[in-house]
Amino acid sequence: MTRTTPAGTPLGDSFHVYDTTLRDGAQREGISYSVADKLAVARLLDGLGVGYIEGGWPGALPKDTEFFARAAAGELDLKHAALVAFGSTRRAGTTAAADPQVRALLDARAPVVTLVAKSDRRHIELALRTDVAEAVEMVRDTVSFLVGEGRRVFLDAEHFFDGYAFDPDCSLRVLGAAMEAGADVAVLCDTNGGQLPLALADTVGEVIARTGFRVGIHCQDDTSCAVANSVAAVQAGASHVQCTANGYGERAGNADLFAVIGNLVTKLKMPVLPEAGLAELSRVSHALAEIANIAPDPHQAYVGWSAFAHKAGLHASAIKVDPELYNHIDPAAVGNDMRVLVTEMAGRASLELKGHELGVDLADRPDAVAGALRRVKELEARGWSFEAADASLELLLRREIAKTDPSAAEAVAPFTLESYRVILDHRADGEVVSEATVKVDVAGHRVIATAEGIGPVHALDAALRRALVPHLPWLDDVELSDYKVRILTSGDGPRATPHGTEAVTRVLVQSTDRELEWTTVGVHGNIVEASWLALCDALAHKALRVRSEVGIGGLRP
Amino acid sequence: MTRTTPAGTPLGDSFHVYDTTLRDGAQREGISYSVADKLAVARLLDGLGVGYIEGGWPGALPKDTEFFARAAAGELDLKHAALVAFGSTRRAGTTAAADPQVRALLDARAPVVTLVAKSDRRHIELALRTDVAEAVEMVRDTVSFLVGEGRRVFLDAEHFFDGYAFDPDCSLRVLGAAMEAGADVAVLCDTNGGQLPLALADTVGEVIARTGFRVGIHCQDDTSCAVANSVAAVQAGASHVQCTANGYGERAGNADLFAVIGNLVTKLKMPVLPEAGLAELSRVSHALAEIANIAPDPHQAYVGWSAFAHKAGLHASAIKVDPELYNHIDPAAVGNDMRVLVTEMAGRASLELKGHELGVDLADRPDAVAGALRRVKELEARGWSFEAADASLELLLRREIAKTDPSAAEAVAPFTLESYRVILDHRADGEVVSEATVKVDVAGHRVIATAEGIGPVHALDAALRRALVPHLPWLDDVELSDYKVRILTSGDGPRATPHGTEAVTRVLVQSTDRELEWTTVGVHGNIVEASWLALCDALAHKALRVRSEVGIGGLRP
Repeated sequence: MTRTTPAGTPLGDSFHVYDTTLRDGAQREGISYSVADKLAVARLLDGLGVGYIEGGWPGALPKDTEFFARAAAGELDLKHAALVAFGSTRRAGTTAAADPQVRALLDARAPVVTLVAKSDRRHIELALRTDVAEAVEMVRDTVSFLVGEGRRVFLDAEHFFDGYAFDPDCSLRVLGAAMEAGADVAVLCDTNGGQLPLALADTVGEVIARTGFRVGIHCQDDTSCAVANSVAAVQAGASHVQCTANGYGERAGNADLFAVIGNLVTKLKMPVLPEAGLAELSRVSHALAEIANIAPDPHQAYVGWSAFAHKAGLHASAIKVDPELYNHIDPAAVGNDMRVLVTEMAGRASLELKGHELGVDLADRPDAVAGALRRVKELEARGWSFEAADASLELLLRREIAKTDPSAAEAVAPFTLESYRVILDHRADGEVVSEATVKVDVAGHRVIATAEGIGPVHALDAALRRALVPHLPWLDDVELSDYKVRILTSGDGPRATPHGTEAVTRVLVQSTDRELEWTTVGVHGNIVEASWLALCDALAHKALRVRSEVGIGGLRP
Repeated sequence: MTRTTPAGTPLGDSFHVYDTTLRDGAQREGISYSVADKLAVARLLDGLGVGYIEGGWPGALPKDTEFFARAAAGELDLKHAALVAFGSTRRAGTTAAADPQVRALLDARAPVVTLVAKSDRRHIELALRTDVAEAVEMVRDTVSFLVGEGRRVFLDAEHFFDGYAFDPDCSLRVLGAAMEAGADVAVLCDTNGGQLPLALADTVGEVIARTGFRVGIHCQDDTSCAVANSVAAVQAGASHVQCTANGYGERAGNADLFAVIGNLVTKLKMPVLPEAGLAELSRVSHALAEIANIAPDPHQAYVGWSAFAHKAGLHASAIKVDPELYNHIDPAAVGNDMRVLVTEMAGRASLELKGHELGVDLADRPDAVAGALRRVKELEARGWSFEAADASLELLLRREIAKTDPSAAEAVAPFTLESYRVILDHRADGEVVSEATVKVDVAGHRVIATAEGIGPVHALDAALRRALVPHLPWLDDVELSDYKVRILTSGDGPRATPHGTEAVTRVLVQSTDRELEWTTVGVHGNIVEASWLALCDALAHKALRVRSEVGIGGLRP
């Protein structure tokens, strides 16, 4: 808990990867970490190998105060990172030693403190309502007090770029006061996020040339350039970069830690993480999204589920020749995977590649490949789409193999449907009720079950579970985690289908058993039947995995 | 349809905003535009004022071929943009004139053609399996053939940056062949998306200095720098920038059109849109997300719902002093809003403006405006969205007016529902049947009607028509032309709702009477009820118009 420099990276203290997910990242709408969440986030970031973890603002937020107390009490054993407490300089008209907010920073017992100070004259005059001389004195006094108390201090110069453009001397006086008082890094903050990389790099270079200070960078994403700005600043001489996991933050967010690291390591060849860290990027990104309770962005650079997914037929055929020609880096380097999307443009090559990815061996099964390709094209012509439904595609491939290979035939029918009925009532009193009855054969039994639900699909799902769980208890672990609906009009034009409601419906169901997630697809003119097909595949896919663990079909003995 | 240069921008042909949402953007996983969708996307982009709209790849994809045919037949009347067909150069070992793919480009009858050509020697040799001389000849032959046929031609130099780093002479030979044969712009493509802005700007500047060619830029977002790279290229001399709406595209996506435009106009002071275009950015971004059936990203730069939302207490209190200190631009400039200060007044003003646009006079009705505003906020908190459903918004406004103005009270209730019931059967023989019964009051009669349909909503629609048409014959003209479903999960994360099927459903129904089209919305936990609400609004909106033509409610005498 007393580390003040990063451990485990070849660059040591000469370059800082500084994470502020727990403070600035938590400014994102909808994020609300518990103290336990905060500890979990810090452990994941430390495991990755970042140099600094800013834990929050002790004294300002009770949860943050508690976080530092628990960290100091031994709940956070950091291997690589130093822990940082964030706070502001003392108020006007007092001393740092007498300011309770500054005192709270000491009480947090973090070895490093980052102080935020206004460095734009307009903010000093209009928001702080003081003058530059006093603002500079607030910085000097607070930094020297904390340094005197044995803390390493960094200065976050708020609104630096706007302030420097408006009145450079004022902004440099603020930096100078901090550095002369013993701060180690002057962090230039693009607080309003309005910068573009070429100009920002020029400013960073100019500030370093004029002052000789060690400079850091903190960017917001309001021009969609936060990652680019951060990297450009490093190229211009900044040696400390502040980011948040997945770019979480206020407004458009902050610079995404994972993209910045990916760029620094793979493009600029800067070893800013311990050796094993880079391959953990994707996993840590998704785990942090999970803790923040935000769906991961599949299109996020480096770590997104689709970051290396190829759809164009043009590409898929050539990818077999040399994947390196079509990926900017090897996806495995950042713990990600190349995915080939099976689409209308699919050919044998992409289907075989896909089978390999899904663990289905198609090497010596030309008939199964041909059959599966025919089936995929036939289904896609009717509106099916497997590009987001790997689990249904795997079932399709295994069902094709089963046609010519009896040993694979037991594969995937944990139950069979006899019939179902769904009744939806909008009653005269205005209440809307859904009720479903299913009749299925499972494990040699004919079972009938009825359940109500919020909508027709929910009722059907509930009735199916009620029918099956007594015979297939593992089904209880399966939850639907997402449900997407897309209406496809066959002909397209307004006149092609006389009534839009006659169109075909495609349903994607995402399921989880808390270990894995998988997605299945169903298509039908009737939305409930389409949902049913996707639901059945979801359970069949789980059965595939259970079967290999507990025997055929996962049946209770 | 014969425009080859942008119209309506101060920069004219000297700078091109080039949109490829319909071609490269459609490579994003999950996007599948119908031809009607493609026409709607093109109209929205044209309304914004982009210079070029790439409509697709005629000859390669049947839907794209149909899109160009319908555009040429008069369904697309572009005011600002020129329409572009995309395709590849002729194959090796033939002539452009004899290549059916090149012929398909001519048949598309678009005035501009963008040709893609490989400009990385490794791709020429490994993927095309030919040599540089033949690749160069393919470019020269195809460009000069299309120019000879009266087309304006742009060249997309695929993998340019990687290729130029590997073998600059080869890459420049490809550009040279195109430009000498009559192409107007050499578009440098970062196809694998691995570039960073400082180096990319250097390369762009160097290519321009060495060749004197007019240069364009096309960036993918694999380093999270596509927007920054595009802007940096423009600063380095590129005068043609290719983007996609909301950054849709393969893998991590493309450069986001809205962020690039925002940066060019507000940061670099380049008037790249017609005067009124900038304030449409947010609206068009959301409408295009709606058509793509992708939830808008609230944190998207410039246009996101949260792009100017302030959470930090630190900021929120100071914002009252001077909002300009805390926003990088005035949010209204891009049609967005600052959310901390969303006041009653701001909401009222935009609602009145919207009423004016819809022909609802709210000038002397402060109570109706206040009531409508309350109602809109209450509904939006429950998942409703009126952004794409003007007809439902108009009904909402008129219903508020009716509360205080008896003369308007007869407005919008052509019938009232007593109850409905829908029964869905998946029979033992595999057939799936939907049957609906409605009980309604119309024109003083209580009517009960039953009908079958392909799915539950279709059956309900059919039963409702059967009940109403004898009394409201004009209803026979109304057709549903499109139907979209979006599932809204309350939280965001996979754990937010234990079962995805319990989420709230938003349905958009687009209707037409062969003269006009209008869109209505319904939201409910039950998808069928949500559809019902949108259906009822669709008919009520038609009644509004019929009433002014043939008397109250359009009742048969």
